[in-house]
Amino acid sequence: MDRIKELISEMTLEEKASLCSGADNWHTKEIKRLNIPSVMMVDGPHGLRKQEGETDHLGLNESVKAVCFPAACATASSFDVDLMERMGETLGAECQAENVSILLGPAVNIKRSPLCGRNFEYLSEDPYLAGRMASAYIRGVQSQGVGTSIKHFALNNQETLRMTISSEVSERALREIYLPAFEEAVKESAPRTVMCSYNKINGEYASENRYLLTDILRKEWGYKGCVVSDWGAVNNRVKGLQAGLDLEMPYSGGYNDRQIVQAVQEGRLDEAVLDEAVERVLNVVFAGEEQHRPEVISDKETDHKKAADIETECAVLLENNGILPLNTDRKVAYIGEFAEKPRYQGGGSSHINPFRVVSALDAAGEKGRSVTYAKGFSMENDAMTEQELEKALRTAAEADVAVIFAGLPEIFESEGYDRTSMKLPKCQDRLIEEVLKVQPNVVVVLHNGSPVELPWADRVSAILEMYLGGQGVGEACDQLLFGEANPSGRLAETFPYRLEDNPSYLHFPGNGKRVLYGEDIFIGYRYYDTKKVPVRYAFGHGLSYTEFAYGDLTLLSAQMTDEDILTVSLKVKNTGQTEGKEVVQLYVADLCGTPERPVKELKGFAKVHLLPGEEKTVSMEISARDLSYYEERLGDWYAPSGTYRILIGHASDDIRLHADIVFETKKKLPLRVDFTTTFGELLDHTKTAPVITELLAPLAAAAASAEGMSDEYKKLGEQVIREMPLKSLLGQMPGEQVEQLIGQLNCLLAQ
Amino acid sequence: MDRIKELISEMTLEEKASLCSGADNWHTKEIKRLNIPSVMMVDGPHGLRKQEGETDHLGLNESVKAVCFPAACATASSFDVDLMERMGETLGAECQAENVSILLGPAVNIKRSPLCGRNFEYLSEDPYLAGRMASAYIRGVQSQGVGTSIKHFALNNQETLRMTISSEVSERALREIYLPAFEEAVKESAPRTVMCSYNKINGEYASENRYLLTDILRKEWGYKGCVVSDWGAVNNRVKGLQAGLDLEMPYSGGYNDRQIVQAVQEGRLDEAVLDEAVERVLNVVFAGEEQHRPEVISDKETDHKKAADIETECAVLLENNGILPLNTDRKVAYIGEFAEKPRYQGGGSSHINPFRVVSALDAAGEKGRSVTYAKGFSMENDAMTEQELEKALRTAAEADVAVIFAGLPEIFESEGYDRTSMKLPKCQDRLIEEVLKVQPNVVVVLHNGSPVELPWADRVSAILEMYLGGQGVGEACDQLLFGEANPSGRLAETFPYRLEDNPSYLHFPGNGKRVLYGEDIFIGYRYYDTKKVPVRYAFGHGLSYTEFAYGDLTLLSAQMTDEDILTVSLKVKNTGQTEGKEVVQLYVADLCGTPERPVKELKGFAKVHLLPGEEKTVSMEISARDLSYYEERLGDWYAPSGTYRILIGHASDDIRLHADIVFETKKKLPLRVDFTTTFGELLDHTKTAPVITELLAPLAAAAASAEGMSDEYKKLGEQVIREMPLKSLLGQMPGEQVEQLIGQLNCLLAQ
Repeated sequence: MDRIKELISEMTLEEKASLCSGADNWHTKEIKRLNIPSVMMVDGPHGLRKQEGETDHLGLNESVKAVCFPAACATASSFDVDLMERMGETLGAECQAENVSILLGPAVNIKRSPLCGRNFEYLSEDPYLAGRMASAYIRGVQSQGVGTSIKHFALNNQETLRMTISSEVSERALREIYLPAFEEAVKESAPRTVMCSYNKINGEYASENRYLLTDILRKEWGYKGCVVSDWGAVNNRVKGLQAGLDLEMPYSGGYNDRQIVQAVQEGRLDEAVLDEAVERVLNVVFAGEEQHRPEVISDKETDHKKAADIETECAVLLENNGILPLNTDRKVAYIGEFAEKPRYQGGGSSHINPFRVVSALDAAGEKGRSVTYAKGFSMENDAMTEQELEKALRTAAEADVAVIFAGLPEIFESEGYDRTSMKLPKCQDRLIEEVLKVQPNVVVVLHNGSPVELPWADRVSAILEMYLGGQGVGEACDQLLFGEANPSGRLAETFPYRLEDNPSYLHFPGNGKRVLYGEDIFIGYRYYDTKKVPVRYAFGHGLSYTEFAYGDLTLLSAQMTDEDILTVSLKVKNTGQTEGKEVVQLYVADLCGTPERPVKELKGFAKVHLLPGEEKTVSMEISARDLSYYEERLGDWYAPSGTYRILIGHASDDIRLHADIVFETKKKLPLRVDFTTTFGELLDHTKTAPVITELLAPLAAAAASAEGMSDEYKKLGEQVIREMPLKSLLGQMPGEQVEQLIGQLNCLLAQ
Repeated sequence: MDRIKELISEMTLEEKASLCSGADNWHTKEIKRLNIPSVMMVDGPHGLRKQEGETDHLGLNESVKAVCFPAACATASSFDVDLMERMGETLGAECQAENVSILLGPAVNIKRSPLCGRNFEYLSEDPYLAGRMASAYIRGVQSQGVGTSIKHFALNNQETLRMTISSEVSERALREIYLPAFEEAVKESAPRTVMCSYNKINGEYASENRYLLTDILRKEWGYKGCVVSDWGAVNNRVKGLQAGLDLEMPYSGGYNDRQIVQAVQEGRLDEAVLDEAVERVLNVVFAGEEQHRPEVISDKETDHKKAADIETECAVLLENNGILPLNTDRKVAYIGEFAEKPRYQGGGSSHINPFRVVSALDAAGEKGRSVTYAKGFSMENDAMTEQELEKALRTAAEADVAVIFAGLPEIFESEGYDRTSMKLPKCQDRLIEEVLKVQPNVVVVLHNGSPVELPWADRVSAILEMYLGGQGVGEACDQLLFGEANPSGRLAETFPYRLEDNPSYLHFPGNGKRVLYGEDIFIGYRYYDTKKVPVRYAFGHGLSYTEFAYGDLTLLSAQMTDEDILTVSLKVKNTGQTEGKEVVQLYVADLCGTPERPVKELKGFAKVHLLPGEEKTVSMEISARDLSYYEERLGDWYAPSGTYRILIGHASDDIRLHADIVFETKKKLPLRVDFTTTFGELLDHTKTAPVITELLAPLAAAAASAEGMSDEYKKLGEQVIREMPLKSLLGQMPGEQVEQLIGQLNCLLAQ
């Protein structure tokens, strides 16, 4: 640290400013006279996009050959933090081998709409799951001495007009839905950098948002690292520095560096602010230099195998009437070009140049399976000739089982633009319908980065969601279809029946200037549960080739206070014939009658491997924060005293066990009395209640003795009185006396 | 006017202040030494609640006998502006007869949630319908020299915590949904007073809201009348005066008058502001005095007949398999206490003391119909004994048809609190289910002020919605059931299948401090249509005993500009055997692809009486405003140039005719160029487009010649470029050059 401060003191103003932006698309600037090196960042997050020739930040030009791991849409579905951490370790080692200092990921934006073109890079509709998985990824990568860049901070939940749109969100939704994944990762895993997003938040660009980059990130969460801009997110560079944006990427031709110099010279920017940013940039640079391990070599073949193994843990079995796993005696037909050329990653900055891709057909070939194949439709667009259709139908009819490899063509979803529909290409839906007419046994394998509408879901025998499964997707698929692996992925997002059901539907993607987050905290299953909207597949859903039984839910205590950590344990048993993994999910429900709370929220999960007949005890922990919502009046997390329910299950729509706890908090909502304070508020506060009870005594006595008034009416009368503000006393006493009363009540509260 | 200004100049400060609040619950203050009289206001709006003894503003104490007309929930369903105006005239005459100067109504708050306890007093979920009906009511009352008070201005869409809650709403929803009914009435019918509501709007009390009471109401809409507070809505009296609140009601014990005096003396309040308020109050007082016609006598029996006649135009036939009208030969059983004691009005300030109430049983008796009767359940709460049930079932079984009089007991909905469920009392649903088992011919008559869930709707033979139909409801019901009148009411609100489907469900009634209007403009059918949520009965729905055919839709022109008024005409024919009335509804749909617009919006309607076989031409007019949404960037109504569809139909879900028009506007969205302006915005503006086209020419040429790139990708590429802001040029040219370009573009725009 002293060395860095010393270095800064030796720099010219111009040198300092120069360090606040990149040298090119991928490197920090060096200063030779001071021996300050340059370090490299590369795009990720599910592999390395390292460019050596022509560079760009849109994923257009070639990058060096690398291993493409499953995208985040897939890995989140593993619900396996250890797996995520191990993947991070592998990626970290690859970075070391390529002399890369920072891997630009993970991407943790919440999946607000299934249409967001970049959803495949994001983890979940649930902030808790996203936070846990992101945290594990960062731990893994950084354990190898390589930095990460958690992104895109924040509210970048769509591609449409991402450079200029303003995400309009309440403080509560910001805190409960859109920030916790960042918060968890920052607090638990200290990513070396945080990448601010392109968009505005309530009218202020993220890159200039002091509330976000300094007040919340650094002051509240204690973040010590460096904030880097998304590539091209800088707008007003000086305002950005003041807000807490340290490093602009990529190089802006020197223009913004000159803006900084000028601002300092004209006294508009405190040089200390610049020094601080430079210090944070240098921390990153020297960490990169110091932690570089040139001896690390990574083996692509080994990592390819890892990529395939990870994908087997990610794929989600959505439907199965028992046809899966496939019996190897049966004649199997593969239909659809994705069988031959899988879609295994998305477009844009995360686009990896894989050194090898294995398709399901390749994998079947390697295993010597006798699988017939018909292309059917094209994987590149919405096209299928009648000849191809006929051949596909013939092939399907001649087999015992038809496995249709469907999915979204690359052009349908990518960074840079959003989808406009949740449907598969028409030709694919048509092919599936036609095959169903000639073949009763239809399995659909899906390759897509975000939910699609599945109008035929009730009529096919099985659906296996591979998401964008990385370069080993074909091997993973082969193992899962034929039972060499048992599906254990669970949906990290809801599959609604149709796009219109999605909570953001009315407002997404905004009016060209702003996008209203009108659904507030009711995102994903929080919405579907609360509005009782039926869905195709619920959050957390995923089948297995075996069955699991739940029992013995035990809470260490039935009471809980602000400081307590409650241990929840239960037993889960594999009651089937196949070894497999269950994802035990823990949700919390507020039974206190607090307004505007979702029916339940995920607050814990654990993935458990179980042999046939094996039983294990699973323990999870719950803190007060897990019961809380963000209370804007308090500017803090708050759970009212009362009863909460712990729900344990296999999926959000398949709760198996539950138990209640009584929570007691010492936190108090702020109360300052004025003419508009209601009797109810005053009666609810122990300090003011006696005065108000006495004041209302005549009214209460009159009500109690009222003849012929039903109990229901008496109760309603009480409620109406509770809602009356102190100013309603004006009819009965002089206003000056009400003023005195207010003074007296405020005195009591201050005591 | 001069007389009033002169009077004010003669007043002491204390006298002026005294005129800014009432003398008691119902009168303005008099000043004897200046011969300033006192005038009386009384609660309404569907009758007179004039109190002479103990007074209150909650509808608790007795008021003088009066005629109770159908409540607004019913009258709005008439879709008949002439009827509404005639009712207003009758009410105005009653006021004159009672020496009442101002009738406190109409109430035009939008029905955001079916749970709002006061919905029965409100007109519609649609602002256009509410505005037209309110306007007609005001015209009617004021034609008799009696003033009105349109209320509650504004955003008072719930009873829960109405004295303190803040309605949090976007400017667009405020302008498009919550204000237009007030706007229409103020501009068309100049209500003598406007009553401000209790609640806050975006954090500021309506009674202190200068933006609402002065900027919008007076400056934008040109309102010249007097703003009066809802009873007890005043909080900070001085701030209220400054905001434009003239008259505080009721008397606040002198406290707030003293606040005014003190503020003027201390220089915190400009005395000219006070003078203006006093002038507006005196305008009301002297208008009351001058226009009083002591010779007017109203005849209650005549008005009772009018009340019953009006109700026959309001009731909505929701279902009918042909059983209605009832054949007088058939044995009819009336079941349910509402047959004997109808619920015909709601609780609270609008509660009338009717001089007579006629039930359906009374009416049947008068007509000499042989109707059997069983009480079944109690009309007062959710209670039914097994004996009552048995008797009801026996009575039903012995008849040819069972008519069940169901509805909400008074305690279920009232001013002062909201419902918590949309269900009927359990005993009623049970009774209906049980009767269905013993009697195939079941007609349900409903008495309620707001939608209820109707789980048996598909299994009964007919449903007749009487709403809260006033004191003649029984006679109206009798005429409609037996075909002496033909139902012609149409729903002014959607009946969803269940409460959860309502757009405000997630947020209503807020968190105790604020209620988020997260659904924004998507209220009522605007939501159900757009989200494709199936509903029990759509907005505008209502059956008749005859059938209507539509044809010959003609637009005077297929083009339209900002200034044009487009005449739309069509023919509607009674193709059945019974005379009847059709409500022709006109909706407008934006086909320009404008984001965030409802599928369609009501912009015209006409009620037409047709003899069997008769055909009439109906004409309606459309202006640019009818095509427009409120564009926040412009602070004005705006319809982009493009195609709009005129939809004509029997109901919002039963469109019979449509035709398109091409609209051309001269309005331009504001554009000021900076680093964040997108190429798309610049290409869309005629002045900047040539510069940008030239700038992007090399890119366009490269894209055009790109080999192997599909048209879809080229199109996406164009879109991505359109969304790029000028700052993205920093990589290709020095920032100083971009600055110059921005300057040049702004010059072009300024030319």
